[in-house]
Amino acid sequence: MTQRQVKAAVLLIGDELLSGRTQDVNLQTLAKFLAPLGVQIAEARVVPDIPAEIIGAVNVLRIKYDYVFTTGGIGPTHDDKTADAVAAAFGVHIDVRADARAILEAHYKGGANLNESRLRMARIPDGAILIANPVSRAPGFQLGNVFVMAGVPSIMRGMLEDVGHRIEGGAVVRAVTVRGRGVREGDIAASLAALEAATNGAVTFGSYPWFAPPDSFGVHLVARSSDVEALAKASDDLLALIRVRGVEPELAEDDS
Amino acid sequence: MTQRQVKAAVLLIGDELLSGRTQDVNLQTLAKFLAPLGVQIAEARVVPDIPAEIIGAVNVLRIKYDYVFTTGGIGPTHDDKTADAVAAAFGVHIDVRADARAILEAHYKGGANLNESRLRMARIPDGAILIANPVSRAPGFQLGNVFVMAGVPSIMRGMLEDVGHRIEGGAVVRAVTVRGRGVREGDIAASLAALEAATNGAVTFGSYPWFAPPDSFGVHLVARSSDVEALAKASDDLLALIRVRGVEPELAEDDS
Repeated sequence: MTQRQVKAAVLLIGDELLSGRTQDVNLQTLAKFLAPLGVQIAEARVVPDIPAEIIGAVNVLRIKYDYVFTTGGIGPTHDDKTADAVAAAFGVHIDVRADARAILEAHYKGGANLNESRLRMARIPDGAILIANPVSRAPGFQLGNVFVMAGVPSIMRGMLEDVGHRIEGGAVVRAVTVRGRGVREGDIAASLAALEAATNGAVTFGSYPWFAPPDSFGVHLVARSSDVEALAKASDDLLALIRVRGVEPELAEDDS
Repeated sequence: MTQRQVKAAVLLIGDELLSGRTQDVNLQTLAKFLAPLGVQIAEARVVPDIPAEIIGAVNVLRIKYDYVFTTGGIGPTHDDKTADAVAAAFGVHIDVRADARAILEAHYKGGANLNESRLRMARIPDGAILIANPVSRAPGFQLGNVFVMAGVPSIMRGMLEDVGHRIEGGAVVRAVTVRGRGVREGDIAASLAALEAATNGAVTFGSYPWFAPPDSFGVHLVARSSDVEALAKASDDLLALIRVRGVEPELAEDDS
């Protein structure tokens, strides 16, 4: 039985990612979280805090892919524009919602600390389901197939605890990595291409050179497949490919 | 005199970025390289090693922005599909080109080491201008407003030496960062929004909370502008905004 492929897009939102101020790490976190659930990230985009750009990207991606995961832009300041933009993308109403407000009231003890700015974090589009935030309480939300999460990595990771159970995944793509120290890509490229061709699409092979100056280098060969048997054969084939070069290969730990 | 805004897109190409295997760092490198040249990155995308996805993204981005910078997919292995995809996006012919071949022949001493796989790195679209690679020699290329570079960060950085002089930048956007230790976003959000509104679009303000467990936290307030005087005033305003909270602010070094 062949399971269907479930594909997702990641939309990273924030001027700070495009200016170089902030190094994104959420894409990698999401990829490693989703893979075992049977969801592959097929595309990612980074857009600034501009409503039209967020709306445009959300609407392209939510139609093209099974799921969309956004990060960033749901805090209390004026540059947090994601919640309103996602509501606009879906054409639904958005306002401070009672369930989200209750979470903030409990957190801020209902007092003067819950000012107008913080209440912005209770703006939830009609029809959305809250995503719990175990770190700083202000919730994310799911609207249709779009999951809207915080940009701060520790908070985004915390929100994933309330996301996984909502995901209907498909085939789980697994990977093996074979490391060939001192092997050059150009010397194994033809053999690698032949290996991929022989699998008739069952396995995808990737080749990633690495350099550790001054004089250490090599290649990581990666096989990815949702077919366990085909992947086991691919792993053996990659080990053989490196041994032919007179090098003893290593099976690397990273399997993404 | 108001200089024009010059905008760029970055297109990161590679299955390994979407699977979570590899943490991209090229976007940040490009942002910090381009900013002083007067080029702002307005959007970034990550696509897999699938020709149709690369072609589609190149054609959307090269029309929408002044420049496009791609990284990844120009090596010798079968999963390196960028050069052919960019040629297809422009509708131009691509084949092994004499100038690129000569570079590889010199590097590989013209002998048997320059096999068919390595010759793939000399496939250059008609009309493209080579980008020198001071690290591993195999060139990138510029076709119209699209710069095609390697994905390995050290090689990508090396190629930038042959890119900067081709860029016609516009207004240089500078940034200042003010750090407020122990300050919470929700307490300064209204004042920050008022500051931005008062600049009539001359300055963009961003607010980025930080957390250093167990008990240290605060906010980075960033002002970005191409107007030097407006930025100086914004910097003073941000310092005052933090002092009002009873905290002595710090001017942070990072200015992106």
